[in-house]
Amino acid sequence: MVIIMKIIKTYLSLQTKKRIEVIDITDKVSKEILKSGITNGFAIIYVPHTTAAVTINEPDPALFEDIIKTYTKLVPIEGSYKHNEKYSGIPREQNAHAHILSSFIKPTVVVSIEDEKLELGTWQAILFLEFDGPRNRKVYVKVMGD
Amino acid sequence: MVIIMKIIKTYLSLQTKKRIEVIDITDKVSKEILKSGITNGFAIIYVPHTTAAVTINEPDPALFEDIIKTYTKLVPIEGSYKHNEKYSGIPREQNAHAHILSSFIKPTVVVSIEDEKLELGTWQAILFLEFDGPRNRKVYVKVMGD
Amino acid sequence: MVIIMKIIKTYLSLQTKKRIEVIDITDKVSKEILKSGITNGFAIIYVPHTTAAVTINEPDPALFEDIIKTYTKLVPIEGSYKHNEKYSGIPREQNAHAHILSSFIKPTVVVSIEDEKLELGTWQAILFLEFDGPRNRKVYVKVMGD
Repeated sequence: MVIIMKIIKTYLSLQTKKRIEVIDITDKVSKEILKSGITNGFAIIYVPHTTAAVTINEPDPALFEDIIKTYTKLVPIEGSYKHNEKYSGIPREQNAHAHILSSFIKPTVVVSIEDEKLELGTWQAILFLEFDGPRNRKVYVKVMGD
Repeated sequence: MVIIMKIIKTYLSLQTKKRIEVIDITDKVSKEILKSGITNGFAIIYVPHTTAAVTINEPDPALFEDIIKTYTKLVPIEGSYKHNEKYSGIPREQNAHAHILSSFIKPTVVVSIEDEKLELGTWQAILFLEFDGPRNRKVYVKVMGD
Repeated sequence: MVIIMKIIKTYLSLQTKKRIEVIDITDKVSKEILKSGITNGFAIIYVPHTTAAVTINEPDPALFEDIIKTYTKLVPIEGSYKHNEKYSGIPREQNAHAHILSSFIKPTVVVSIEDEKLELGTWQAILFLEFDGPRNRKVYVKVMGD
């Protein structure tokens, strides 16, 4: 299929509520895809922050607890971190764990679009990972296709 | 170079054989790229499952053992997981470890295509990561370019 | 916006200096984007190696130390690895930790381009992760857009 390429840039905002939190943003992202008018192509879902990330998995609240427990067991909030020492006395900068988790999981996923919809598997959802909230966060959604 | 964009969607199937397994799917993905007829562009290789993932590394069976051992040391199969409690009694749902690993590694990679081939480094292969098999699995391959 | 698609392939080289090292390559990548002449689209930043990776985070040297310490705590350099046994006696191949970290973090990120610039958040930088240096390394930059 030969297509005329379109590129649409949009974004969504969210207010996180907890220090560490998993938030299902599938509906919000889907709305941006629909608004773009692009029916076939792909979307880059991108978090422009260094203490958050985005991933894909099942939107099960019980699983969200397991994810948070496991992530913070692997990269503890309370640790001996040079970044936290450097900014000691600044409460908002005691967040090396969040940077490290974000560097590990990364702030972006690329998802195919078919028939104006994110082509996710049956159990998949787009999950925003807050590692240092509560904060106002943005997610860029760049859509390319026809 | 100005190109006429094409978008081809295809997928491959595989039957995994073990609970946790690393499978080199480079040849299968390469065949889909060739079939697409696209010579220059990129491919989104996407696993539509929440208990598997895809990555890139050397296809060395000894390394596959190390990967499996390390991943399951970091995220043990037998752990105290809310997701498993919620579905206690359902053997097929005792898989929180698989969801967590999938959320960490994520179900997608994007690879450049040049001359109808995946532009991988010398030692690189596309690796399917099964975390909760054996199961029938699909991998979407979306190819864009000219 | 309807666009004529262009695809430009380029790459950058770097010489790493340490066994494990985090290197900010944002400026180098940005130069390749500018050279491509593409103003709006996206870039695939891709490491064609199996013992390195690429991620996005804050370019803070104190944080780099925390990242290295945490990564090698999770996946120790000195461990009991089949890959290292298989190549025992070959010093350059005692690098299972590097393969495993690379398989976990993966060798690629996709970033949007707007106005000839990588659309990074305020604190974000493109970080090359060396897990088995010092080595000569390449990073592919594939740019698509108009």
